[in-house]
Amino acid sequence: MAVETFEIELKTKGTNHVIDITPQVKSCIERSKIKNGIACVILPGSTGAITTIEYEPGVVSDLIKAIERIAPQDIPYEHDKAWGDGNGFSHVRSALLGTSFTVPFVSKSLILGTWQQIVFIECDNRPRKRSLIVQVVGE
Amino acid sequence: MAVETFEIELKTKGTNHVIDITPQVKSCIERSKIKNGIACVILPGSTGAITTIEYEPGVVSDLIKAIERIAPQDIPYEHDKAWGDGNGFSHVRSALLGTSFTVPFVSKSLILGTWQQIVFIECDNRPRKRSLIVQVVGE
Amino acid sequence: MAVETFEIELKTKGTNHVIDITPQVKSCIERSKIKNGIACVILPGSTGAITTIEYEPGVVSDLIKAIERIAPQDIPYEHDKAWGDGNGFSHVRSALLGTSFTVPFVSKSLILGTWQQIVFIECDNRPRKRSLIVQVVGE
Repeated sequence: MAVETFEIELKTKGTNHVIDITPQVKSCIERSKIKNGIACVILPGSTGAITTIEYEPGVVSDLIKAIERIAPQDIPYEHDKAWGDGNGFSHVRSALLGTSFTVPFVSKSLILGTWQQIVFIECDNRPRKRSLIVQVVGE
Repeated sequence: MAVETFEIELKTKGTNHVIDITPQVKSCIERSKIKNGIACVILPGSTGAITTIEYEPGVVSDLIKAIERIAPQDIPYEHDKAWGDGNGFSHVRSALLGTSFTVPFVSKSLILGTWQQIVFIECDNRPRKRSLIVQVVGE
Repeated sequence: MAVETFEIELKTKGTNHVIDITPQVKSCIERSKIKNGIACVILPGSTGAITTIEYEPGVVSDLIKAIERIAPQDIPYEHDKAWGDGNGFSHVRSALLGTSFTVPFVSKSLILGTWQQIVFIECDNRPRKRSLIVQVVGE
């Protein structure tokens, strides 16, 4: 058994940029010496989110519309009144969607569906450089 | 320390079918040689979800109503325009609710509340056969 | 490799009480003999939730407002009709937000952003004593 730590670096375009990070997570597993286990992918940050979707433009657009309904950009946020950085909606979206995703792998293969991808959702209101951490635990 | 992989097979009735999978997850732990650790339950697929609820008909009905409010079936979805399979809402629900759930166990007992069950929520618009994977990691 | 189990005890003030539990999770890692790995924090219960936010009063207030929109307190719930404990909304919120959160740590340090805290959200309609479990897996 072992624990190995990897980093995924991303450049995002700001609000609602959804990035397929499955290739990067696969690469972590491949570079690891661990054959079977789990990978915990986390955003160290409070204005983005990680989940899975079928990464095709229609679903990505539909998901963004749902997120806009749940935490709209054009309503007042207390965070903005206090801090003035205009990203109150970003914080709410991140908390609702979640910043951590754990996925098993077997014989170096991620356990995902054929049409299922792991995605990072930029919730912040400006382009960001992101460093996700992938903690791989197994044997 | 060890890693063991189990499979849970389900037959669902389509949209909003909520299935208590706690007995199946318990069975994985019992069949495993691992005494203490965590179990990561994942849907390899993009039109279902895993969470916990008190599995009684009232709460199940209330949860479904909330999901219908968040991602209604009767609004237009871009995914449906492009692919015509009518399950755009299913993809959005899966991404919002999440496809992975990790639960600890101690001395072979799942750490859950008395009234808390692990459930699979079918979000797709037709009955499906589902194979969930349970990755058990521990010692 | 090892598995260690810790407990976090909380006293909550009822609906919408959001508690920063980062110090308690850090303390579990510090007391553990494990240096690198993951910590799975779970609520054994069906009327609370765990996520991450920037724990400042504005964001906490904004998050609560979003949760109130998603699963309002003042609409009818089937659970309440059957059981009369008035916390139907609590169950729905817990299922939507999630009861389990997994976070990596490296050299005894949690992988979190500078402004990111792990929080417990009380969704129940009365003050509760809560015992969260933290399962630490690593080496």
